[in-house]
Amino acid sequence: MRIDIITVLPELLKSPFEASILKRAIEANLVEVHFHNLRDYTTDKYKSVDDYQFGGGAGMVMMVEPIDKCITKLQSQRNYDEIIYMTPDGETLNQGIANQLSLHKNMIILCGHYKGVDQRVRDKFITKEISIGDYVLSGGELGAAVLCDAVIRLIPGVLGNETSALTDSFQDNLLAPPIYTRPREYKGMKVPEILFSGNFPKIEKWREEQAYKRTQERRPDLLKD
Amino acid sequence: MRIDIITVLPELLKSPFEASILKRAIEANLVEVHFHNLRDYTTDKYKSVDDYQFGGGAGMVMMVEPIDKCITKLQSQRNYDEIIYMTPDGETLNQGIANQLSLHKNMIILCGHYKGVDQRVRDKFITKEISIGDYVLSGGELGAAVLCDAVIRLIPGVLGNETSALTDSFQDNLLAPPIYTRPREYKGMKVPEILFSGNFPKIEKWREEQAYKRTQERRPDLLKD
Repeated sequence: MRIDIITVLPELLKSPFEASILKRAIEANLVEVHFHNLRDYTTDKYKSVDDYQFGGGAGMVMMVEPIDKCITKLQSQRNYDEIIYMTPDGETLNQGIANQLSLHKNMIILCGHYKGVDQRVRDKFITKEISIGDYVLSGGELGAAVLCDAVIRLIPGVLGNETSALTDSFQDNLLAPPIYTRPREYKGMKVPEILFSGNFPKIEKWREEQAYKRTQERRPDLLKD
Repeated sequence: MRIDIITVLPELLKSPFEASILKRAIEANLVEVHFHNLRDYTTDKYKSVDDYQFGGGAGMVMMVEPIDKCITKLQSQRNYDEIIYMTPDGETLNQGIANQLSLHKNMIILCGHYKGVDQRVRDKFITKEISIGDYVLSGGELGAAVLCDAVIRLIPGVLGNETSALTDSFQDNLLAPPIYTRPREYKGMKVPEILFSGNFPKIEKWREEQAYKRTQERRPDLLKD
């Protein structure tokens, strides 16, 4: 998979891709991530990427032209499965969308910043708008990092143990059950006895019950689908 | 506001706090963010923070003791309003929660990693569990960065223009209306005429209608509350 991220703040995105699972996936050539600084596609001497809103109002708007230039150049080099815009009014990211996107070959992710992009960018270039949740961030960069993490870890070979992703929350519409590790007792707090029984079918059953109970208590909406 | 982030990967969190609005908020002393490497609170020579799951199963579990030590040390220095654990089965972050948290003085954010933390950490130390959305990430670090961004930008003085946050999506349960900037026409795509009318009450009315229309089309659930 190849991901091209268009941003005015490539430096903000640096460290999440240089650590942990994303770093290992890149080093193992399972994914390529390229950052494109939108300022490299500007035409004026101030390298402006934004301008005032037509009709008045607070906050700057990202201009069409630099984005057009960057996307057009990338599209002349390869075909893209999706051109994604990170925006709080996009489709809300969930595990199903992450699963789908993990099958793609090439994707562009455009990070909004300031008040967002000129609507004409969305009308003309964007094939999918994604929000990571119902809250507002300073820019689309953290959203892009979250999206990349959620998608890249699903690419076969990225996680050390493939079963690890399959037992995560959401993969079966249930939250994960409680988990425990050593010591068996810590300051009077004990690990449930069943986990030492060695009876694995019984342990599996307990975990399923716990997962169901936790989902019912915390997220009954997940059980409705 | 002071935020203490407990993590096994402080290096992953670096760049988001060194750019843009978070950087400016820190430089202006509107917020202090401290990273605590959990490995500094381990007792064995391998600096282990995780161990196998009791009862078997894929994925490692973060141990109680280093987390206990780190939190206890921080609590001996000041009072905390919340000790937050980032986890996909927590309460889903939204703008209302971000608004509430932005009023706090001191917060600890614990980032889960691997399969998550020993359940006893959650039972004993955590006062609030937060998920940034219904998807699984490699760790809680990006979630912590997202939470910090959503909260810090709401602290008075952080955003250049205070009205900017008030007209964002979600602050009034409506998505933001379309926005436009120069040029007036780009490759045949025109900006709606009304925005040049100079009639600001009329422009406001158009924006409200557009915001309502977009919300009805994309997120009718927001209008139900």
